Amino acid sequence: MASAGMNTVAVGIAVQSDWDNRHFSSSLSLNVRRLFEFLLQFESATRSKLAVLNEKLTVLERQLEYLEAQFSTAVNSS
Amino acid sequence: MASAGMNTVAVGIAVQSDWDNRHFSSSLSLNVRRLFEFLLQFESATRSKLAVLNEKLTVLERQLEYLEAQFSTAVNSS
Amino acid sequence: MASAGMNTVAVGIAVQSDWDNRHFSSSLSLNVRRLFEFLLQFESATRSKLAVLNEKLTVLERQLEYLEAQFSTAVNSS
Repeated sequence: MASAGMNTVAVGIAVQSDWDNRHFSSSLSLNVRRLFEFLLQFESATRSKLAVLNEKLTVLERQLEYLEAQFSTAVNSS
Repeated sequence: MASAGMNTVAVGIAVQSDWDNRHFSSSLSLNVRRLFEFLLQFESATRSKLAVLNEKLTVLERQLEYLEAQFSTAVNSS
Repeated sequence: MASAGMNTVAVGIAVQSDWDNRHFSSSLSLNVRRLFEFLLQFESATRSKLAVLNEKLTVLERQLEYLEAQFSTAVNSS
């Protein structure tokens, strides 16, 4: 009886622990997956926004250079 | 005796494994939470810095347009 | 026999569950570590790109201010 009782306890702990761990692990695993998807999306959005800013800056740099050249010509020819 | 020995082994493994897993899972869970908080903070800081850069760029674009217009007027009226 | 059978089941579940959990946890743990490394690398790259953009913007702001001052001088002296 004592042996059967311990058996039941062992099986009970093993099964419950197994279930708890699987439940916990699957929810943790899901959170890690969501976190990863969020990170990928954020990384992609940031890369895209940085590229847009870089593009705008390059356009501005050229416009400014062009204006400087025009100004320089105007000053020298006046 | 053999049966009691196996019982003890079973309970021992179940309990130890359960404890190990809980310990491991809770520390893993804590790391995932910290990682998530770091990610949220980083995402928020990045969004804010990108907004500041965008704002500065817009100001520069307007200043350059204004200067171009002034220059164009000055050249045409001279 | 029935007791020995339950013993075997208990040890079996405990060992299998333990192995499964360890396997699962170590692969989850590895993924969290990779995610963290990816995040650190991304954060560092983003910080560096934002600093470059900020630097370029500051240079542009100064060039524009300088051109505005030159233009203003030219207009006033003409």
